[in-house]
Amino acid sequence: MAVPPGVSEQDFKRALERFARVVGTEWVFTSDDDVALYKDAYTPLWNEAEERVASAALAPDSAEQVQEIVRIANEFRIPLYPISTGRNLGYGGSAPVLSGSVVLDLKRMNRILEVDERNAYALVEPGVSYFDLYRYIQERKLKLWIDCPDPGWGSVIGNALDHGAGYTMNPYRDHFGAQCGMEVVTGGGELVRTGMGALPNSRTWQQYKYGYGPYVDGIFSQSNFGVVTKMGIWLMPEPECYLDGNIECFGHDDIIPLVDHMSYLMNTGVQNTGTNLQSPLRFALAQDADLRSLLTREDAQAAARLSDVSRQRNVPIWSNTFKFYGPEEVVRAQWAYTKRRLASITNSRAVEGAFYRMPLTDEQKRTVRDEQDLGLPSLGVFSIGARSAFNPTPTTGHLGFSPVIPMTGEAVIQSQRVFSRVLQEAGRDVAANVFPQSYHPRTFVILIMFSVMHDVDANQQTRKLFRRLIEVAAENGWGEYRTHSAFMDDCARAYSFNNNALLHLHERIKDAVDPNGILSAGRYGIWPKHLRRS
Amino acid sequence: MAVPPGVSEQDFKRALERFARVVGTEWVFTSDDDVALYKDAYTPLWNEAEERVASAALAPDSAEQVQEIVRIANEFRIPLYPISTGRNLGYGGSAPVLSGSVVLDLKRMNRILEVDERNAYALVEPGVSYFDLYRYIQERKLKLWIDCPDPGWGSVIGNALDHGAGYTMNPYRDHFGAQCGMEVVTGGGELVRTGMGALPNSRTWQQYKYGYGPYVDGIFSQSNFGVVTKMGIWLMPEPECYLDGNIECFGHDDIIPLVDHMSYLMNTGVQNTGTNLQSPLRFALAQDADLRSLLTREDAQAAARLSDVSRQRNVPIWSNTFKFYGPEEVVRAQWAYTKRRLASITNSRAVEGAFYRMPLTDEQKRTVRDEQDLGLPSLGVFSIGARSAFNPTPTTGHLGFSPVIPMTGEAVIQSQRVFSRVLQEAGRDVAANVFPQSYHPRTFVILIMFSVMHDVDANQQTRKLFRRLIEVAAENGWGEYRTHSAFMDDCARAYSFNNNALLHLHERIKDAVDPNGILSAGRYGIWPKHLRRS
Repeated sequence: MAVPPGVSEQDFKRALERFARVVGTEWVFTSDDDVALYKDAYTPLWNEAEERVASAALAPDSAEQVQEIVRIANEFRIPLYPISTGRNLGYGGSAPVLSGSVVLDLKRMNRILEVDERNAYALVEPGVSYFDLYRYIQERKLKLWIDCPDPGWGSVIGNALDHGAGYTMNPYRDHFGAQCGMEVVTGGGELVRTGMGALPNSRTWQQYKYGYGPYVDGIFSQSNFGVVTKMGIWLMPEPECYLDGNIECFGHDDIIPLVDHMSYLMNTGVQNTGTNLQSPLRFALAQDADLRSLLTREDAQAAARLSDVSRQRNVPIWSNTFKFYGPEEVVRAQWAYTKRRLASITNSRAVEGAFYRMPLTDEQKRTVRDEQDLGLPSLGVFSIGARSAFNPTPTTGHLGFSPVIPMTGEAVIQSQRVFSRVLQEAGRDVAANVFPQSYHPRTFVILIMFSVMHDVDANQQTRKLFRRLIEVAAENGWGEYRTHSAFMDDCARAYSFNNNALLHLHERIKDAVDPNGILSAGRYGIWPKHLRRS
Repeated sequence: MAVPPGVSEQDFKRALERFARVVGTEWVFTSDDDVALYKDAYTPLWNEAEERVASAALAPDSAEQVQEIVRIANEFRIPLYPISTGRNLGYGGSAPVLSGSVVLDLKRMNRILEVDERNAYALVEPGVSYFDLYRYIQERKLKLWIDCPDPGWGSVIGNALDHGAGYTMNPYRDHFGAQCGMEVVTGGGELVRTGMGALPNSRTWQQYKYGYGPYVDGIFSQSNFGVVTKMGIWLMPEPECYLDGNIECFGHDDIIPLVDHMSYLMNTGVQNTGTNLQSPLRFALAQDADLRSLLTREDAQAAARLSDVSRQRNVPIWSNTFKFYGPEEVVRAQWAYTKRRLASITNSRAVEGAFYRMPLTDEQKRTVRDEQDLGLPSLGVFSIGARSAFNPTPTTGHLGFSPVIPMTGEAVIQSQRVFSRVLQEAGRDVAANVFPQSYHPRTFVILIMFSVMHDVDANQQTRKLFRRLIEVAAENGWGEYRTHSAFMDDCARAYSFNNNALLHLHERIKDAVDPNGILSAGRYGIWPKHLRRS
């Protein structure tokens, strides 16, 4: 039997017996086969000593049981690693950051406690997935949408706590921003309700965020200090219509005015969501070594040549999908204005896109380009890396390097060149990668995807490259917004202002709210006192 | 000389000498006349023993000076009370919650460090007022708007930290929600940058909020744990147009569909801001004792009678101003849709309002109904309580009781009745008071205004009534979102879920981040360990 670090086998057995009395023997998992299920299916550490593995897992059914487990863990100093549905693939999944931790699997706590149609919110437990919430709403024919990230099987709470993002309107697409009111069991074992939930019999727990006094909810994101057992989430009333359209550009530097217009439209609410920014030409050059080399050059000639190729082939170097939600007359006016505004970019082209009136028919649900844009949970993203005409070698999983850069065309150009050179030096594909994603209101995330394989050498090379990217990003003032557990310490080191003052603040809060350091050891670089390197 | 509680006169003198070496003698205020200026001009405790007074005040010029002051205060255990511009009238102003505290006056730190027009944000120090930021923008002819609360002389940072609200679009009108990235001197004296500011040379400190790991900014709101020395704030690009219009209703229960439509429009972004909800009839009944009694009755007859009076007099019982910002074709489409949607309320009436194309002319700036709706700072709100035809007795100041209620018509009706009865029992005016304000996206604040006088008896009666209102609100599941310092402990007591678990969490964070408890003693009910009642 695996045993958590620093815990005697005897103490661990006693603790497991105590846990079993709380959750029932059938919800304490200790067999090798059961515990192996909590490995990270997408781990870049496959079959290496560093691979993160649990010692056991527990599946409580209620906040009260979580509270009892946390108390027992405090007594025996058992490291716990809470997961919601454990679907956080690409970021560590269900595996703990500290090997030997006991996974606190909250999947059984999957109750949808309330959905209010008039005020458009839900109160859920951590085991509730996007699919669960979607089905609940559909079965009751409520006129509400969810906002989900790419895979729909993840936890509504887990994704919000992980600062995840979706694809419908503001404020819903910022999943932590759309949370309102929490119930938390702190590392010290206290059950706290935040915001208006601190008022007994509160009528506005899921409607007013800040409550009275300091606003503490944010410290519970990333799950270092407490186990969130209930959370409110704002939902979007079903809009009457959805409309999208593309603006295509054929000049390399058109990205500069394109992003400026996009910022204006977003920041004034005309385009009240993220956009889908693509470079069709970049993809088209994937097979063309000669032209591909242009992507890493800094000179004006290279930029001019790319513009020429774009125009000659009639393949846009930049394409941006604008999306609008609302009454037909409003979305049509928003798109008309967008087209007129963007027409100032010479030779750009507006291409009409989709228009849907809600509710969607079943046929429409099957054929929409991106289900997530229309509030439909899906698992379609898992086609990434699957065997296909473009990819004869299916991968085990993937991993995203995702630094935050300013939302300007100049930053897109600069970051693409900088990261492309690092990838090129490592002999990696630069064409179909290094892409700005519009996940957040005021910045882009440059997403660089890596395949994860059942191949130790390949994974080690990928990790080495990933660490190099973290360094290069930091040199340029760009940092990751979230990362896979294999790189959490590396990224944390980059956030070093004033001798890592923010990390020290996190540690002070850690020691106060989780005094025995039993929760989520190592997550996002925050270690309990007894495991901290000074 | 006044001396802080628990500090010897000798120690205080030594501390003041040390402070003077940091900030210069001229910025250490100890004379009675100087210190009296830090009294709360609107205090409801005027001339009573409880009135909050400072022992001294310090005005540092930089974050480094703040850090040195905090270290000295830690050494001598001097209670500090940080204020930005000290204009927080109605909530305690520049006076400390704990009498004898040294006011840390940040007014000299009034630098506008950066305004970025393309990405629409500012980085400011705490002494920067809304007027300062507005003028800076105007002088440089930047196409940016600020979002300001009623009085424009307050601090951009102070109002955000106080969970203040404004009147333009989302997300700007939620001042804490629009903040992005802080620099803070913690109570323990450490200088921390939050969010992406923890990355040296960061390019996205004012653009991406959450940074890496737990999101801590919220704990610094209400200023219990640190002194915020810099803060980013998102600004709104100047919209092309502004349009507003009223929907007037003549039936008592029309508030129910009116608020439902309003919620839908807000939550789908069609009406992407708060509205201005009024009851013209309620004001009209102020002089009519007979009809006024209808306002506190619960029976259907009273409601029917009010509807009759509304129709007979052609004075709407409910009137709601919808506001739209954006390109002309978009705002006209939004208003057209709003009118069509609201037309389903029988006998309701749409009244066209203002339409402005930006930039406003000077004449338009002088004549707009509410400057704040158009991003213009003003002091016009101070006409409240001033001598006028309606108010022969000018007041010293005012005080708002402001519990948060659900955004439903039923909650408006119920809370108006409940609070009107409490006011009636106390012999107060119920007609022109008890009004739902649309400060926040998903709730109303019921605002009940009181006059503050240079009259001890009158103030004591007002305080007694205020405390009764806190109790009655809590019995109904409604709590205040912010309050005057005279009532901070009373309100905190209402937030008692699980034996005041949230307050205890605040206290744990307090003890960790401000271990000697030198900052903002008593603010929002949070006391340092040595002053805490168990």
